[in-house]
Amino acid sequence: VKPLRKGRPLFDRLALIGIGLIGSSIARAVKAKGLARTVVCTSRSRTTRERVRALRLVDAVAPTPAKAVERADLVIVCVPLGAYGDIARAIAGKLKRGAILSDVGSCKQSVLRDLKPAARPGVHFIPAHPVAGTEHSGPDAGFAELFEGRWCILTPPKGTDRRAVNKLKAFWRALGGHVEVMDARHHDLVLAITSHVPHLIAYNIVGTADELRAVTKSEVVKYAAGGFRDFTRIAASDPVMWRDIFLNNRDAVLEMLGRFVEDLTAVQRAIRWRDGPMLFDLFTRTRAIRRAVIAAGQADNPPPATKARTAKSRTGQDKAARLAR
Amino acid sequence: VKPLRKGRPLFDRLALIGIGLIGSSIARAVKAKGLARTVVCTSRSRTTRERVRALRLVDAVAPTPAKAVERADLVIVCVPLGAYGDIARAIAGKLKRGAILSDVGSCKQSVLRDLKPAARPGVHFIPAHPVAGTEHSGPDAGFAELFEGRWCILTPPKGTDRRAVNKLKAFWRALGGHVEVMDARHHDLVLAITSHVPHLIAYNIVGTADELRAVTKSEVVKYAAGGFRDFTRIAASDPVMWRDIFLNNRDAVLEMLGRFVEDLTAVQRAIRWRDGPMLFDLFTRTRAIRRAVIAAGQADNPPPATKARTAKSRTGQDKAARLAR
Repeated sequence: VKPLRKGRPLFDRLALIGIGLIGSSIARAVKAKGLARTVVCTSRSRTTRERVRALRLVDAVAPTPAKAVERADLVIVCVPLGAYGDIARAIAGKLKRGAILSDVGSCKQSVLRDLKPAARPGVHFIPAHPVAGTEHSGPDAGFAELFEGRWCILTPPKGTDRRAVNKLKAFWRALGGHVEVMDARHHDLVLAITSHVPHLIAYNIVGTADELRAVTKSEVVKYAAGGFRDFTRIAASDPVMWRDIFLNNRDAVLEMLGRFVEDLTAVQRAIRWRDGPMLFDLFTRTRAIRRAVIAAGQADNPPPATKARTAKSRTGQDKAARLAR
Repeated sequence: VKPLRKGRPLFDRLALIGIGLIGSSIARAVKAKGLARTVVCTSRSRTTRERVRALRLVDAVAPTPAKAVERADLVIVCVPLGAYGDIARAIAGKLKRGAILSDVGSCKQSVLRDLKPAARPGVHFIPAHPVAGTEHSGPDAGFAELFEGRWCILTPPKGTDRRAVNKLKAFWRALGGHVEVMDARHHDLVLAITSHVPHLIAYNIVGTADELRAVTKSEVVKYAAGGFRDFTRIAASDPVMWRDIFLNNRDAVLEMLGRFVEDLTAVQRAIRWRDGPMLFDLFTRTRAIRRAVIAAGQADNPPPATKARTAKSRTGQDKAARLAR
């Protein structure tokens, strides 16, 4: 991969289909770093389109996906997975020859199924997943540093043009990320355990607490500092996005959930039979993983080094969003 | 409760039995606010006793619990729940008449059973639980602001002297906390759902991920930003403390865990049968709880208002510990 020459855009025209947390973070970073000559976006919601104009996040806001992708040499789909089929139908045959069609979705096998039909011969179809995010949604929630130090996983189908893959790699590296190439099936398994099941159990414990009679909602909220608060944060993530993830990564999530429940049953049994050593061993083993996560610079969002440096460049809204985290 | 007169200590001599995250945070706050004329502590570990001396956290480090409680008018036990029996035997009959014997343990029914024997007639036994903490342990991890804006739950047995309860309330309020009085049994139920089960499932998912073959440990660490990292943080909490919590709040934890698993089974079934609306409803409902937690000022640690004000008063070590969170 050629290093990026400063000041020279990697792409002529970037089209973002959907401009929520991830799309608007890409827009902010691309504008800040000059990675594309023109950035155009679209959104199904008129409110969002107006908000994006007010925020001046992009050069042009198109009324439809078909209009947005015109003349674009990089198209990134940034909508919930359930909308991919509609998007594919809307842009099929509209992409220019040689363009790269990519996305940011959290499952990759379903993307091969749903989005590939939009890429006619001559269009490079390269699904991608930047493993980064917060529990906030919408174009106000994004920030340019979101991808710094984070991994972006590409899952190009076999036979994808190597130069196109390298160009997309260079793009994500320019956004501050690390890049990994992986098989879509393996991606979905890795994300099921590192992201999807954790979100599911966070949603679930908050739901359980919400429905109790013996403990009031007000008590749950007052004493949230005992650990519950972290789960409420995760369980505040976008409901549509997460519904679509579970519907589209069904098999891997059910497989990992099965293992989680199996292990939980063993822990439950250890508590019932007062097996202190079993609990102590588990609680000690998990500490090592935390140390590895910290050592890998993946413990904070964004990483500490970035935090200080970028604090001043953020808008008031971004700051407020970060503080609320 | 009389408001605290500035500069006048509430207690003459405070004894801390155990000086980890919570004990050392109490010591720091009490010294900073002048809430006791003398603060003495003890620890079973020689390393900790030496570290506390080096950090100059207290006025005196006693070699044993029996020595530490001599002449103290407030004794706070800050050790893991499994050590309460030993402490009770070591200090039985050594507390001065009129002294308050309290603690900071995360379960309260077991404390009634294990620590009450140490309180001979004339000693006020008032178990307490400040619902505050981080995943860090030891005397270096504490900071004076830990209790600001957090709730401290007192569970005095029936018939406890009201003035003594009010004095302990004033103490925790002076540390910046809110105070609630509650029945020990109800406390254990509330904490099971807001703290104990959340920690258990965090430990469990990290354990599950750690044992997978299909996904390597290195992958789990690299892609932790997808949500997993928050669970690794919680699962890095002190293993001895948490083992003892599960052994001592067995029934309430098993009850709440049962409900969690029941609900999880329903969610699992919804994924298997592609029941999008059920998932969407749950994911929407949980957002409301997050909003309530933020509104109650329990979302951050310590609350944002405190953060800025206290940033300068912290030592380098404390700062490092907070950054690592």
